[in-house]
Amino acid sequence: MKIYIDSLAKLVNQFSKLPGVGPRTALRYAYAVIGMEKEEADELISAIREVKEKVHYCSVCGNFTDVDPCPICENRDKSVICVVKEPKDVTAMEKVREFKGVYHVLHGVLSPLDGIGPDQIRIKELLKRVAEGGVSEVIMATNPDVEGEATAMYIAKLLKPMGVRVTRLAQGVPMGAELEFTDEVTLARALNERQEL
Amino acid sequence: MKIYIDSLAKLVNQFSKLPGVGPRTALRYAYAVIGMEKEEADELISAIREVKEKVHYCSVCGNFTDVDPCPICENRDKSVICVVKEPKDVTAMEKVREFKGVYHVLHGVLSPLDGIGPDQIRIKELLKRVAEGGVSEVIMATNPDVEGEATAMYIAKLLKPMGVRVTRLAQGVPMGAELEFTDEVTLARALNERQEL
Repeated sequence: MKIYIDSLAKLVNQFSKLPGVGPRTALRYAYAVIGMEKEEADELISAIREVKEKVHYCSVCGNFTDVDPCPICENRDKSVICVVKEPKDVTAMEKVREFKGVYHVLHGVLSPLDGIGPDQIRIKELLKRVAEGGVSEVIMATNPDVEGEATAMYIAKLLKPMGVRVTRLAQGVPMGAELEFTDEVTLARALNERQEL
Repeated sequence: MKIYIDSLAKLVNQFSKLPGVGPRTALRYAYAVIGMEKEEADELISAIREVKEKVHYCSVCGNFTDVDPCPICENRDKSVICVVKEPKDVTAMEKVREFKGVYHVLHGVLSPLDGIGPDQIRIKELLKRVAEGGVSEVIMATNPDVEGEATAMYIAKLLKPMGVRVTRLAQGVPMGAELEFTDEVTLARALNERQEL
């Protein structure tokens, strides 16, 4: 797609860097910016600037925050740590409103093929938190895929000798699913981990 | 979705104003902004600012431009005017690389139910361009829907007495379509406007 207005092409290029945004969507966003009132565009600009200025990683859990430590690390039960891959997984867990503990964001999972080993994700920081004491349980909540599983197993192996209980989110058939369309690995797990009624 | 970081919530709200962006996508974009290098975020900010400063409507055709008149109005065959609903339709037509004439962007189509009458879109400006002379043909390229059709008919009625040829984009079965799944209105048109082989 040839855009012959330089500044428009530049903005389309910038929007294209957002996740999942192709050139057509980027152009649509750019048109929307052109159509905005000047005040609206200024609000968008200052919102981007403010996020870049204020939001950083919590020095304890690694989640996004604008204070340090973050409100979750500051106010919640530090004896239970839920380990997740990314900040957005914290958002997902928080939607449940049942977890009262704190988090530890790994910022990735082990993926040898991509050159991501234990030193590239925040495993050392987790071990340090546990070593400092007061932690009774670590819940591994990495994604139920090959890399997430491997990462959970790896970390569990390091944590168990430290005398801490290590658990994993239950796996099984999701609510609303139809058995007919559920893959066999999920079904096998659901069967193996079946519960008394 | 509860976001407890103020500046993040503000940015999500801003991104949600872009067309087709819901809160989940907006949050994804906001996370991407947080993950950007400072320079990248500055580039995004300055691209937005530059577009707002430089891009405006061409005083002749109504398309977006950073100079006035726009390069298309300045350099192309002014005897043929292609009338479209929106600037993005110009982009679509330009992809064809076959049209050598100029454009006229209506910025809307007649839609009495939404209160959009002839004075709300750029019809007067089109009549003025034609009245100034040198125009031999006006191609109506509004969308082939009810409002686009009505707008094309309305404008054609005004232009014909001015002695200018008024045409409409051909309608028919699109390339790659399957007759089985083509709606009957399209098929009827394709049949009525069938061509000699």
